[in-house]
Amino acid sequence: MERFRFICSRCGKSEPFSYKAVCDCGGTLLVDYDLELVSQTLFQNQLSLRSSTMWRYRELLPIQHQSSIVSLGEGWTPLLRMPTLEKELQLPALWIKREEQNPTGSFKARGFAAAVSIMNDFQLKKAAVPSNGNAASALSAYAARAGIEVVVIVPKDCPGIIVEECVRYGAKTFLTSGLIHDAGAILEQGKQRYGWVNVGTLKEPGRIEGKKTMGLELAEQLGWKLPDVIVYPTGGGSGIIGMWKAFNELIALGWICGPMPRIVSVQESGCDPIVQSIHQNDSRFIPAANTSSSPTGMRVPHPPDGDLLLSILRQTNGTAVTVTAQEIAVSQKRLGRCGISSSPEGAAALAGCIRLRDNGWIRDTDRVVVFNTSHADKYIHWAAPPEVPIVQDYHDFIAAYDG
Amino acid sequence: MERFRFICSRCGKSEPFSYKAVCDCGGTLLVDYDLELVSQTLFQNQLSLRSSTMWRYRELLPIQHQSSIVSLGEGWTPLLRMPTLEKELQLPALWIKREEQNPTGSFKARGFAAAVSIMNDFQLKKAAVPSNGNAASALSAYAARAGIEVVVIVPKDCPGIIVEECVRYGAKTFLTSGLIHDAGAILEQGKQRYGWVNVGTLKEPGRIEGKKTMGLELAEQLGWKLPDVIVYPTGGGSGIIGMWKAFNELIALGWICGPMPRIVSVQESGCDPIVQSIHQNDSRFIPAANTSSSPTGMRVPHPPDGDLLLSILRQTNGTAVTVTAQEIAVSQKRLGRCGISSSPEGAAALAGCIRLRDNGWIRDTDRVVVFNTSHADKYIHWAAPPEVPIVQDYHDFIAAYDG
Ligand SMILES: Cc1ncc(COP(=O)(O)O)c(C=O)c1O
Ligand SMILES: Cc1ncc(COP(=O)(O)O)c(C=O)c1O
Repeated sequence: MERFRFICSRCGKSEPFSYKAVCDCGGTLLVDYDLELVSQTLFQNQLSLRSSTMWRYRELLPIQHQSSIVSLGEGWTPLLRMPTLEKELQLPALWIKREEQNPTGSFKARGFAAAVSIMNDFQLKKAAVPSNGNAASALSAYAARAGIEVVVIVPKDCPGIIVEECVRYGAKTFLTSGLIHDAGAILEQGKQRYGWVNVGTLKEPGRIEGKKTMGLELAEQLGWKLPDVIVYPTGGGSGIIGMWKAFNELIALGWICGPMPRIVSVQESGCDPIVQSIHQNDSRFIPAANTSSSPTGMRVPHPPDGDLLLSILRQTNGTAVTVTAQEIAVSQKRLGRCGISSSPEGAAALAGCIRLRDNGWIRDTDRVVVFNTSHADKYIHWAAPPEVPIVQDYHDFIAAYDG
Repeated sequence: MERFRFICSRCGKSEPFSYKAVCDCGGTLLVDYDLELVSQTLFQNQLSLRSSTMWRYRELLPIQHQSSIVSLGEGWTPLLRMPTLEKELQLPALWIKREEQNPTGSFKARGFAAAVSIMNDFQLKKAAVPSNGNAASALSAYAARAGIEVVVIVPKDCPGIIVEECVRYGAKTFLTSGLIHDAGAILEQGKQRYGWVNVGTLKEPGRIEGKKTMGLELAEQLGWKLPDVIVYPTGGGSGIIGMWKAFNELIALGWICGPMPRIVSVQESGCDPIVQSIHQNDSRFIPAANTSSSPTGMRVPHPPDGDLLLSILRQTNGTAVTVTAQEIAVSQKRLGRCGISSSPEGAAALAGCIRLRDNGWIRDTDRVVVFNTSHADKYIHWAAPPEVPIVQDYHDFIAAYDG
């Protein structure tokens, strides 16, 4: 009996689980659990006896052998009521989900705990990731723990401290003058020659599944009563896809009932393809043509499955909203004065929440969760980042890597 | 019926709880709980139903009104087995307690969650702390959450990113060219004029009690079987005092039985008064005369109650050990290659563990816990720390503060 299979989010075809993430039709494959089997060992009222990590939901994670699990203590992060902000925004409840308290300082830890555990299951020993920074840092840490070799490429304006993290965890680290998808193109080209798997967004099944635990936790921490609105800073989109999948599984298990929270994606002006797309009447996603936003995890002009993202935001009656660098700075300060260290992405989420509250989209009865996906320190300008090679294309890369 | 009183760690005299920390005899006052009362509501086998923060042990924390509690999600941090290090050091079990996963990125969050909650109980609205950095950052965050005004003074070579944290959380932040006790002297002088309480080490009861939860957690996470050795990077000593107190309370409650773990203090060469003192035959503590170590939390030449520290290390058959900056750097890299981001203090603890393993003091049957008290990013050299006033003495301070 199989515990889980794949189902295609586009064509609906089912197929056995394997080390891939894209259906023949081009759609994103999602892990489909035998929930009857899950409910034989996972009991809602016994979760409190489980570990205070995301592995408390192990039946809902696609790891074949328990011994494959690689954990650094990720998940089960604090969900904090924010009384001051509630008063200021006139909301009945506003929580910050403190994802910055994860190992490696961002929610990316969840995705890579799962992704590296799956690599163990498949006995894969070499990983590569194109990243805006935090994914590279998280992969580096989990791979170090697992004894897996890692190559990461990040844009050359990636905050120096995050670059330093990759180096500290022992990753072969490269910068590129392009954006995250350019880094991805280089790594795709190197797969054959170097024998790594690409654990980039939606390239394998682990990252969505790991991030799914944010949604599972949110439900459990709120006593199985979902909030009305979730505000999430969005780049590649696996955070949103993961949480939406979590809620669907919980509904299917009968642990929660609808309606779904209205999910909101926040992006920074200068790279907001989700926002641009959602305000068009076309159901298809339109990638960003030009990019002028700050180097954060939200700067992803070509998310791998923008259509799925759009459809999730629409299905949940959610939306997408653009905020300015200035609004981000103000929100970061505002969170600081509440005792919270927030990354630009987390601050953007609060800024998005404020915008939507101001324009009435968030109603005065809405219970809202804002995700702080990382902390402020990582983004402080560091004058002396470690010296790592800069590569423009695959040719450069080979010279730097092999030389 | 009183839930808790004070008992003097030196003369043994009991007195009612109040906002102080030093007995008339000069000894450190410790909070003394009515454990019979505690056991009426705190049950060992029901702890798993409690919150995943240090407040799961609320009966063992000296807060009078639940509504006074100020929490940012502190405590219940991961305790991680380190298989690679176990093999390398030939130990049956080695855990890292990941205190860097706390809010504000260090174990100091625990102490200030308690200290600020106690301030609420006493309706105190202004706090000051002399600090090597992390205490200042933690106080700033908790005070921001509580709406308490804060002044901090740290040595001027304090890592710039930590200074930035204090500013971010809204503290009035000052540097001094002296050391932590010089900062303390300035703040003591300002008490009357400015009306703050000094929440420095052993100046009030909250910080020891908050840090105590590290010991409570360790016991619970290990299934109420204590490790043989605990290695802790030590400065002012409240971490050590807190954990020792925790174990005593658990023994008195009948939740664990002895023997106590052998507690080890680690310091850096250039400021290692605990190590110097323990290797003398005199039972009294001798402060460090000169100080040339790096700006970390271990650099405390005059801990406020060195005698108590020494007596704890001796009672538990523990010891103290000095490590060099070079050994710290090597251990930091070693932890990085295991996927752990460690501060110099955390890395020093591992370095101390390695030294004691090499010289046989840690035996090949010992189960060891090493505390990683903060993370690496905070200590990265930052070329542009925020501009905050530098003060040498109280006179300077008044000019900078008032002007
Ligand atoms: C801190 C932070 N927040 C948000 C995001 C965007 O998340 P996602 O790729 O899941 O949309 C990233 C991605 O890099 C990130 O690092
Ligand atoms: C990271 C870190 N580790 C260890 C210490 C020393 O702890 P204690 O003062 O409890 O001895 C400090 C104190 O500043 C610290 O910041």
